[in-house]
Amino acid sequence: MKQILLSAKVILGTFFFLVITQSIPAFAGNVILIIGDGMDDAQITIARNYLVGPRGKLSLDHLPVRSSVQVLSVSDQNPKQAVYVADSANSATAIATGVVTSRGRIGTTAGTDLDVINIIDLAQERGIKTGLVTTANVTDATPAAFYAHTNNRDCENPSLMVDVEVYSDVFVDCSADLKSNDGKGSISEQLVGSGVDVFLGGGLKHFTVPAEDAGDEVLAMAKQAGYQVVLNPEQLNNIEQGKLLGLFSESTMPVIWRGEDDRKAEHSELSWTNSIHWSMGEVTYPEPMHCEDNPDFTGLPTLVEMTDKALAVLSAEDSDFFLMIESASIDKQAHRRKACGSIGELQQLNDALDSALVFTRSHPDTLILVTADHGQAAQIIPEESLFAASPYPIYSPGHVARIITPEGPVMAINYATNDFVAGEHTGVTVPLLSNNVGVGIVPSMMTQPEIFGLIKDYLLPEG
Amino acid sequence: MKQILLSAKVILGTFFFLVITQSIPAFAGNVILIIGDGMDDAQITIARNYLVGPRGKLSLDHLPVRSSVQVLSVSDQNPKQAVYVADSANSATAIATGVVTSRGRIGTTAGTDLDVINIIDLAQERGIKTGLVTTANVTDATPAAFYAHTNNRDCENPSLMVDVEVYSDVFVDCSADLKSNDGKGSISEQLVGSGVDVFLGGGLKHFTVPAEDAGDEVLAMAKQAGYQVVLNPEQLNNIEQGKLLGLFSESTMPVIWRGEDDRKAEHSELSWTNSIHWSMGEVTYPEPMHCEDNPDFTGLPTLVEMTDKALAVLSAEDSDFFLMIESASIDKQAHRRKACGSIGELQQLNDALDSALVFTRSHPDTLILVTADHGQAAQIIPEESLFAASPYPIYSPGHVARIITPEGPVMAINYATNDFVAGEHTGVTVPLLSNNVGVGIVPSMMTQPEIFGLIKDYLLPEG
Repeated sequence: MKQILLSAKVILGTFFFLVITQSIPAFAGNVILIIGDGMDDAQITIARNYLVGPRGKLSLDHLPVRSSVQVLSVSDQNPKQAVYVADSANSATAIATGVVTSRGRIGTTAGTDLDVINIIDLAQERGIKTGLVTTANVTDATPAAFYAHTNNRDCENPSLMVDVEVYSDVFVDCSADLKSNDGKGSISEQLVGSGVDVFLGGGLKHFTVPAEDAGDEVLAMAKQAGYQVVLNPEQLNNIEQGKLLGLFSESTMPVIWRGEDDRKAEHSELSWTNSIHWSMGEVTYPEPMHCEDNPDFTGLPTLVEMTDKALAVLSAEDSDFFLMIESASIDKQAHRRKACGSIGELQQLNDALDSALVFTRSHPDTLILVTADHGQAAQIIPEESLFAASPYPIYSPGHVARIITPEGPVMAINYATNDFVAGEHTGVTVPLLSNNVGVGIVPSMMTQPEIFGLIKDYLLPEG
Repeated sequence: MKQILLSAKVILGTFFFLVITQSIPAFAGNVILIIGDGMDDAQITIARNYLVGPRGKLSLDHLPVRSSVQVLSVSDQNPKQAVYVADSANSATAIATGVVTSRGRIGTTAGTDLDVINIIDLAQERGIKTGLVTTANVTDATPAAFYAHTNNRDCENPSLMVDVEVYSDVFVDCSADLKSNDGKGSISEQLVGSGVDVFLGGGLKHFTVPAEDAGDEVLAMAKQAGYQVVLNPEQLNNIEQGKLLGLFSESTMPVIWRGEDDRKAEHSELSWTNSIHWSMGEVTYPEPMHCEDNPDFTGLPTLVEMTDKALAVLSAEDSDFFLMIESASIDKQAHRRKACGSIGELQQLNDALDSALVFTRSHPDTLILVTADHGQAAQIIPEESLFAASPYPIYSPGHVARIITPEGPVMAINYATNDFVAGEHTGVTVPLLSNNVGVGIVPSMMTQPEIFGLIKDYLLPEG
């Protein structure tokens, strides 16, 4: 009897294996792509520990299909040579276009600076509606890679094109992208001409400057191009269909949470004897802190509200659509070593996923993909060192945020990739999760540019 | 026509979803559990970049089923309170027994120090053979959790039970586990009485000391208990069946690779002006290095050779078996900030997986699980900072290994959880992968103690 049971198991196993490794023939449907910027597994674990406890599950943890994504970058000087850590510009370009490029580039090739076709170009050719929602500027790297082509992510508006200081002592040059040099112009100008149906996010300041070839501001050009421009949640509520540009803050939208009194991760303080030799003296760790509401988050729509409106507008005429939703400040807050900001932002992503899942009840042909663009610096380190039994002072050389979780214990989060004003990304693989529509479509591992092919095959099947 | 196609897709999708989310009725078969100690996604990405390039795939990357594992620990003082970073003792206990406990414990409960039943106890009740293979001591925390019960992982032999300095200035007390105190004795003594069929690894020194209650050394007791003791690859080759204890090194088995001239990660050197203010002066990064063969790896079996022998011996009588294979020094080398050592050790794990996959051709009812016990410190950071355009010197405050990969570029690996002689673990979720037998059995996310249930349900089905 056992032999028969074993055989039955083998046949069953082989059948199921074939079922999930063979692609289902593609049929058109909607695609909702949710990108947590910098949302590697460390960031998700940090947020889970805080939001639902280490044994709990976030909505994204319940998604039935899991993959891991190899993030690929190349050198701009030698595009055949690998670079092991990406930024949001080239990783979003990989997702949006299927092309591996160098850091900082938006929809252009490494070294040769050629424009590459993106998923939105292809969707528009088939009359499929498209939308981009973000908590960053709508002209920031991640959304920009889905509609723009520049040699540098920082050229977000016409005043930031030639020899401009974008942050302290860092200058940028996009003169090759100027319209006067036969380029496509700045990112906000390219947005106006993109034909994308829905833009919602921050970055108003990139639209209130004169366009390169017109006296008008870019915002006026957007209205001329047919966009209904909304600047607050009330105006957003009133829109039901049509082209929509929502700009709810001058720059990146403020996050929902912050550390106590806006504290971030800090260095430990060392006694003078410890500064003489590591084995001597004492160390004072940063004080533990709670997370609190961010008072700057006022008069703004949540990521859920933006997601719900985008879904309503894009599905109003019952056509298929592609919607990218970015929770941008998991990364931006991690760069600034603000753990509570990243946690709150991941909460926003999880809530937006809930909305997308509710939408699939009435639109079951909707493929939901949740992924990240690249790794980030944060690590959960032991609140009590593994070597605490030793008599020596042991501490991280980086910045540490000791967050008191709702359960009571302290979670120590280490940011130690550099000591600069902003931390570094890391080169780890990132997760990709999918709803049940992804079964048989999403393999257990893939490269980041293969996400483009996955979306294209589902959204725009051949023949 | 489109409506019909959509409906067909929904029906197909729902069918496949049901197929993979419903458990297949359990039938007995072998289980091979491969544990990469400290093998989080950062470690796998580091090894992949080096071994096959960032676009390449390791054998473990090809496994068709992927899950993510929530690592759980609790406080020994308050077992209801979460601790966010594990060690190998309590995480292996979770896998082996399904019980969440506190760091340092082997098969015992947090606070109350009660012995808990492990998967090997249950397998032996059903007459199923068992084996434990590791590159660490066979008495080290990960294998020990599958057969032993102590309040502290460091009590590896009878001479390490009471007030012993296990490493610099750290003392340990396992007097409650002394046989004279009605305990089960040290870990090596418990090994002798465990009834496990195959042990292969390092740790001879823990067997060449007198047993607590006998004049004999523990090794003599092992022989009396029926173990064939082998100490080198030639002796190992001669074994075909029966109880087997292979001890190939005094302590942890040397790894196959090391850094150039045994270099490890190092601090950057700062100019004196930089030590005055971060924005001034210069920084000299550690010199890049190649990986090279470790000359200490001589006269030793590889993990593949040990795996092949364990599989041959355990399957010699055509009975079902449970085999745990640990690649231990991914973690141990990472603690010492030796990136090449971890990479070579992960190569060993990948080769052992290849052997296990070959075995499944003739034994298709074999469930292979590949997972890690906890996260480790290493991060891939940018070789050229994301902020390199700024005029300031930017560098990690931790130790950095700049590894020249076979493709040519430098991969920068950061170890910055502390500045102690050994780095810390991290609290990130860890991957779990499975062969096709895992389809329908392995969910997309699980807690670490649920791995115990997964193994038990497959190996020892009810009824």
